[in-house]
Amino acid sequence: MKKAIVLLSGGLDSATTLHMALDKGYDCRCLIFDYGQRHKKEIKHAVKIAKSAGCVHKVIKLPFSWGGSHLLDKEAPLPKRGIKNIGKKIPSTYVPSRNTIFLSVAASVAEATAAGAIFIGANAVDYSGYPDCRPGYFKAFETLLKRGTKRGTSGGHIRIITPLIGRTKGEIIKIGSRLKVPYHLTWSCYAGGKAACMRCDSCLLRKKGFDEAGIKDPLA
Amino acid sequence: MKKAIVLLSGGLDSATTLHMALDKGYDCRCLIFDYGQRHKKEIKHAVKIAKSAGCVHKVIKLPFSWGGSHLLDKEAPLPKRGIKNIGKKIPSTYVPSRNTIFLSVAASVAEATAAGAIFIGANAVDYSGYPDCRPGYFKAFETLLKRGTKRGTSGGHIRIITPLIGRTKGEIIKIGSRLKVPYHLTWSCYAGGKAACMRCDSCLLRKKGFDEAGIKDPLA
Repeated sequence: MKKAIVLLSGGLDSATTLHMALDKGYDCRCLIFDYGQRHKKEIKHAVKIAKSAGCVHKVIKLPFSWGGSHLLDKEAPLPKRGIKNIGKKIPSTYVPSRNTIFLSVAASVAEATAAGAIFIGANAVDYSGYPDCRPGYFKAFETLLKRGTKRGTSGGHIRIITPLIGRTKGEIIKIGSRLKVPYHLTWSCYAGGKAACMRCDSCLLRKKGFDEAGIKDPLA
Repeated sequence: MKKAIVLLSGGLDSATTLHMALDKGYDCRCLIFDYGQRHKKEIKHAVKIAKSAGCVHKVIKLPFSWGGSHLLDKEAPLPKRGIKNIGKKIPSTYVPSRNTIFLSVAASVAEATAAGAIFIGANAVDYSGYPDCRPGYFKAFETLLKRGTKRGTSGGHIRIITPLIGRTKGEIIKIGSRLKVPYHLTWSCYAGGKAACMRCDSCLLRKKGFDEAGIKDPLA
């Protein structure tokens, strides 16, 4: 059975990605990062998503103690820029090199467990504008792994698979609904209160997606 | 003052690299990784080297709990292949994607602290044969950072500087001696006993270097 590492954040994109990987027949091992985000809620949700899919999962602690992002700082304001301005510039919630660190760890686990693929639910359409979510970035990462790993330099490869990269949020939710992704277990809000704030980028993008798909958000 | 992040392992290559960066006028912040290596001795040595240079340093814990290397496993045998066979194939001490993880974290710290350079003491001449120590790998990493960071996509850059990449071990030690690198504070042996084992790749390469340079190893 072909093996894959899947990065899970607790949000709906990564949950959909996991179910797409399972649907393609991959034996999936989920990685969840506890990196000092504003709240632990998304980590708990990620664990629930992995468990509900019956997948092995691992929570990896790597606090970004050097800061550099409003997403790591509970006191800092979250951007509230409205749906039309999302994606136009890199927001203060950008975490320096976050995906690079996550993918590096995933690559290490992939080599150690003989997995040939890493799935990441990055999206470059309805997204916050982070540079580490764009196709050219993932292409560069594959080149890096081709040159810098034992597997890559010994005739094998580690593919970075981004099945959502060109999809709108509405399309993602339609695909996920067909695959019965447990969206009631996902969490998108940056703020991490009892209920979603409905004002941060992540909440607005989620709402846009469910509206477009014509599906009711189970968390709404 | 131009800022740099320097990766310190406790060995002589990274200590020399730190002093080359300081000599070039960089304000250096040292990163030291506690990644589950066989012994903590090299971490202590790295801290001493940073302190003796008067540099800010940070020890980052990231146990490679998924394994995949004899360097992470105290029970596993270390290769003893003799100086002539070193570098011919990737040895069992290769740690999957180690430099990729270290450089990713360094890139994150670089962005968070507005540093434009990362120094790493990688060497592709007298080295163990690890794929993540070769020039093409570092080139690919720079491309990755150009595409995947806020700094890189906003007209700035984060350079990966490898001043030792094409040097022999003897040349490295000659340069370091001129710069008064405190080689008595460095530690190279993979085994981490009271004295160096003098049989592992790392010990053999160190001995070769001091012999070639015609300098007495202060640890010998």
